[in-house]
Amino acid sequence: MSVRVRASRLFERQLQSFFKQKRSAHSVGIIGAPFSYGQKRRGVEGGPQAIRDGGLLERLSNLGCQVYDYGDLNLTTVPNDKPYNNHVHHPRTVGSANRILAESVSRAVGDGNLCVMLGGDHSLGIGSVYGNTQQQPDLCLIWVDAHADVNTPLTSPSGNLHGQSVSFLLRELQHKIPLLPGFSWLTPCISAKDVVYIGLRDVDPGEYYIMKNFGIQYFSMREIDQIGIQKVMERTLDHLIGRRKRPIHLSFDIDAFDPTLAPATGTPVIGGLTYREGMYIAEEVHNSGMLSVMDVVEVNPAIAASDEEIRATVNLAIDITTASLGQTREGSHCGIDELPSPSATYEQDEQTVRL
Amino acid sequence: MSVRVRASRLFERQLQSFFKQKRSAHSVGIIGAPFSYGQKRRGVEGGPQAIRDGGLLERLSNLGCQVYDYGDLNLTTVPNDKPYNNHVHHPRTVGSANRILAESVSRAVGDGNLCVMLGGDHSLGIGSVYGNTQQQPDLCLIWVDAHADVNTPLTSPSGNLHGQSVSFLLRELQHKIPLLPGFSWLTPCISAKDVVYIGLRDVDPGEYYIMKNFGIQYFSMREIDQIGIQKVMERTLDHLIGRRKRPIHLSFDIDAFDPTLAPATGTPVIGGLTYREGMYIAEEVHNSGMLSVMDVVEVNPAIAASDEEIRATVNLAIDITTASLGQTREGSHCGIDELPSPSATYEQDEQTVRL
Amino acid sequence: MSVRVRASRLFERQLQSFFKQKRSAHSVGIIGAPFSYGQKRRGVEGGPQAIRDGGLLERLSNLGCQVYDYGDLNLTTVPNDKPYNNHVHHPRTVGSANRILAESVSRAVGDGNLCVMLGGDHSLGIGSVYGNTQQQPDLCLIWVDAHADVNTPLTSPSGNLHGQSVSFLLRELQHKIPLLPGFSWLTPCISAKDVVYIGLRDVDPGEYYIMKNFGIQYFSMREIDQIGIQKVMERTLDHLIGRRKRPIHLSFDIDAFDPTLAPATGTPVIGGLTYREGMYIAEEVHNSGMLSVMDVVEVNPAIAASDEEIRATVNLAIDITTASLGQTREGSHCGIDELPSPSATYEQDEQTVRL
Repeated sequence: MSVRVRASRLFERQLQSFFKQKRSAHSVGIIGAPFSYGQKRRGVEGGPQAIRDGGLLERLSNLGCQVYDYGDLNLTTVPNDKPYNNHVHHPRTVGSANRILAESVSRAVGDGNLCVMLGGDHSLGIGSVYGNTQQQPDLCLIWVDAHADVNTPLTSPSGNLHGQSVSFLLRELQHKIPLLPGFSWLTPCISAKDVVYIGLRDVDPGEYYIMKNFGIQYFSMREIDQIGIQKVMERTLDHLIGRRKRPIHLSFDIDAFDPTLAPATGTPVIGGLTYREGMYIAEEVHNSGMLSVMDVVEVNPAIAASDEEIRATVNLAIDITTASLGQTREGSHCGIDELPSPSATYEQDEQTVRL
Repeated sequence: MSVRVRASRLFERQLQSFFKQKRSAHSVGIIGAPFSYGQKRRGVEGGPQAIRDGGLLERLSNLGCQVYDYGDLNLTTVPNDKPYNNHVHHPRTVGSANRILAESVSRAVGDGNLCVMLGGDHSLGIGSVYGNTQQQPDLCLIWVDAHADVNTPLTSPSGNLHGQSVSFLLRELQHKIPLLPGFSWLTPCISAKDVVYIGLRDVDPGEYYIMKNFGIQYFSMREIDQIGIQKVMERTLDHLIGRRKRPIHLSFDIDAFDPTLAPATGTPVIGGLTYREGMYIAEEVHNSGMLSVMDVVEVNPAIAASDEEIRATVNLAIDITTASLGQTREGSHCGIDELPSPSATYEQDEQTVRL
Repeated sequence: MSVRVRASRLFERQLQSFFKQKRSAHSVGIIGAPFSYGQKRRGVEGGPQAIRDGGLLERLSNLGCQVYDYGDLNLTTVPNDKPYNNHVHHPRTVGSANRILAESVSRAVGDGNLCVMLGGDHSLGIGSVYGNTQQQPDLCLIWVDAHADVNTPLTSPSGNLHGQSVSFLLRELQHKIPLLPGFSWLTPCISAKDVVYIGLRDVDPGEYYIMKNFGIQYFSMREIDQIGIQKVMERTLDHLIGRRKRPIHLSFDIDAFDPTLAPATGTPVIGGLTYREGMYIAEEVHNSGMLSVMDVVEVNPAIAASDEEIRATVNLAIDITTASLGQTREGSHCGIDELPSPSATYEQDEQTVRL
């Protein structure tokens, strides 16, 4: 939001001779996933476009990333997609979309990229994580969200698949998940001990049972209040990569933030993360050096009382993404070797101007 | 604020066969006290109705509480109620209302209930605490408030009795309180060492003198900033029930919250509790297992710039009440014994549907 | 924001006989510096008037300060003030204004006052700090700001002098600062080890290089998130006055606060200080007993979406100023020796009234 006026192009070029931007090692692939059938409100399929329009790619380029845009996936609905068990909605459409997404993420990671997946709703976590595990079977998962999204199709109160994503991924739940039409391609690919939740504050009974029974590490808002975000991240990273470095999949639901910060989302819950807590999470993931794929989901530009609310939510999504990829609040070196001195050239310039 | 769509009734019944809601042991009595003469602005007498309309009783029932509604007390004004000492307003009316309230609280507690008293202004703390001590002489008091409400009638700058409640209750101030008309029924019933303040940020000189001189434990916003809400609650509970378990009376003035969260209140003071700090206080009181009576006061639906402000304030009052009575942010078991499996019935249902 | 109704004048006089306000030892000089040429947006020259109109002087008097108003300085533009090096704007005007301000601050401090300088933009930090060092060469500097304001004229991306103030003051940068027209009167007067930054979150590459290379202690928002405001202040004061007491110059840019709290400012940056963190910083500076001069800058009443935004920003500026000068949140003694008792006079008064 800084409005400092940029220098003239001429002077900027002079500056750049001093501050040769050290190009980041990151090459970042962007995958848009305009998809909304993991829940009942349309609009969240507009997330990728809104985040692109908000300037994400330019921000990443300015940061020194090599950005490869894989474009937006074509995630169509499957005809005659009746609810499973008269309760779980759009199983074939969600299954199909995630199969396509999984292939795309797998390819982007295989190309050697850090990958940013722009949703769409959080049912896309299924395909994104699964695709990532095809290249990196050893990955771990940080799920930042107001909700645990770990209902099975048989415990879900709503029947929305965006609240069930993690249950499809967990090996421990293999025999608790019915075979939904559209999901035959999928096998569980991650263990409960490799998952950490951050930001929970609306957890269903079945979800709580699963978290407790399988020993998933979680930090609900209560734990964040209790020990603070610094210790939350310390414990998260210690739990996941303390003994052994391995890739981190960061699945960030914008509704982890407080609704005052991220109003344009479908299932807001009061009492969420502050802006600064979100930035700190992102910075720590970046500092670990192990980020592999980042999901940014549930930005719904169709839900908002004003353009300002859309803008705030989109900017927040962009800020956590760039922070996860190296943007800092304390500043950074950018390869400066020494300060410019008011020597020959400059003073002479000034003399010239004075004449 | 979660908008997750609820399951169909049929499926819900299936779910309930797995998740037999473990009914909470709490039986909760609700007492409405529509009263505003402890201060000068009318409107706060509308608090009980607004909080009921906001759905408190349903929320408590859903939580598994047995709710007994004692209805709203009939707290009328006393005629010819001239100010005491030409300064302390409505002494007879405030005295009379608190006498009625004290009897009601005493009866509800005597009936074996946890009791929630919905104000009304905070002068009602006099009757609520006094009534509670009639059943439980050994109780301790947590007063969550922007103000200390411990002026005596002789130190109060405003003359409003809602800013003097605690002074009438303290044994140590016995000889500093003049005999106000309307208060002859009342004797001090609690000691300074049994009181803890949380959230103070607007303390009058006489109040500060009393707090310091009689060694009342307090955590102003400064102390919360200094040590954090986790330590504040740890020290609060250690101070009050660390050595010996005894009933806690929680007197929660909504103006303890920041005015951005609770705008519909009469004496807002900037720099208050966050939503999450308030929840944490309530959760810790619940977790102590010793909550006896809770006052929820100073919600004034007549003071607000918009319906949204009223709604926010009322919802906040409801959220702290349900959290004090067992609502959690991390989820809860609700007596689940095992997860449903995709066995016979379910898969067959699906087959049937497919045919 | 408290709206407690004040007592009648008569009763207040009675109260005052008990609570003889212990007059603070502070005598405070107020210097207005209506100046905006350190950056490109006009309007911030209205800061001093807005802060006065908001009641700063009355608030300081109520606090027990002896207030001397030095009035507003006459800081005019210098004609034909071409940019230096075709990039640094209004050098002669900024240089001249700061020379005048330096003299004024030096005089006010020499008169034995604590001094509050009301800006105006943060380029005024140059004159304020320099003037203070003329009386107190040994001072240290706490710079509370979203920005480091330590670009040299040769590294500044914007060319605005309000982003370069600290570079002119630092001895270590002596040979990196070109001789700007208007600045021949100025010599560096403070060392890198005597400066602490709090609140940074938008730091340019050259600034980061300077902070790191010369070992300036800083607490960006990231460090505040990491260790909390209590430890930030503990380390700040330990770093600056831990071994040896000496005067503190507090230069407080209102943009250190989050833009939701201080919208009326020129270069807002999301993710700033909370109200309570700002108060805590101010309280700790006061409690050190070493505050010498305080700058309150970058309140721009011309930048705001509403009167409410102006009011909020101005009140914030006043609150941090009064807190820096002794206002507390937990209350204070004000020289009370004992509580009034309901003795003779009072009870008789009441009898009289009853007759």
